[in-house]
Amino acid sequence: MADILHRVGIKASTKAVYQALATPEGVAGWWTRDSRGDSEVGGTLVFRFHADGVDIGGFEMKILELDPSTRVRWQVLDGPEEWIGTTIAFDLKQEDDYSIVLFKHEGWKEPVEFMHHCSTKWAIFLMSLKSLIETGKGAPDPRDVKIDNWN
Amino acid sequence: MADILHRVGIKASTKAVYQALATPEGVAGWWTRDSRGDSEVGGTLVFRFHADGVDIGGFEMKILELDPSTRVRWQVLDGPEEWIGTTIAFDLKQEDDYSIVLFKHEGWKEPVEFMHHCSTKWAIFLMSLKSLIETGKGAPDPRDVKIDNWN
Repeated sequence: MADILHRVGIKASTKAVYQALATPEGVAGWWTRDSRGDSEVGGTLVFRFHADGVDIGGFEMKILELDPSTRVRWQVLDGPEEWIGTTIAFDLKQEDDYSIVLFKHEGWKEPVEFMHHCSTKWAIFLMSLKSLIETGKGAPDPRDVKIDNWN
Repeated sequence: MADILHRVGIKASTKAVYQALATPEGVAGWWTRDSRGDSEVGGTLVFRFHADGVDIGGFEMKILELDPSTRVRWQVLDGPEEWIGTTIAFDLKQEDDYSIVLFKHEGWKEPVEFMHHCSTKWAIFLMSLKSLIETGKGAPDPRDVKIDNWN
């Protein structure tokens, strides 16, 4: 088993960061504009990605935890084979003037090349989250920063 | 044991990417301007970082592998305790119009919070490497993109 880990600090309250994580409308501002679904534990979320206007894939998640200003956690129900069954957690805490986001995408069976790609891409999207909250402008798909030949 | 993994694609030859990894002068263009040392296997490299003009720490590495256009690998001799003994590898290959960099910072004893930070920061520096080669302009320390309250 292998995990993707990240840490970003956002100059805002944990409440503000939580709001961008806890609802599909929030996530649409920094991960993918095509984010839909529920806002309560046990519900599902669907995130779709696009290139040149064409749907190129996405993820269905179950919402495992929603702990206001503290934690959001999802489990992947459908999507690329390597993602299915993995969990994605965002843990929040206040430190100095920052809300610290500790990110963990946990349970990859193998450290495949796609995991390398997703690790870098998560960093890019967490910086998009930071930018959304600090400046009002994120870079969600399809305006996301491209990192390699896979996107 | 835990590893940091990343993947970036750079629109350039693997030879051009290798040159930015294989010498301290190359690394100075994307990781830290204060990069010094050797350019052969068995030699050492010293990378120092700064904030507000003050030296805030750094790393000493042993060069384990230098395989032109293919691989660069270092071992950490000195620096933050969590880094000592870990290894850092850059594997290169051509794919489509890209040189693909597969990055691995291997051998962390525990997935501590500092590892989360370093994972995100490596993504930022690999994007700096990509930018250096594609546009001629990297963002090495002290002009690096800040991600949190630790830097």
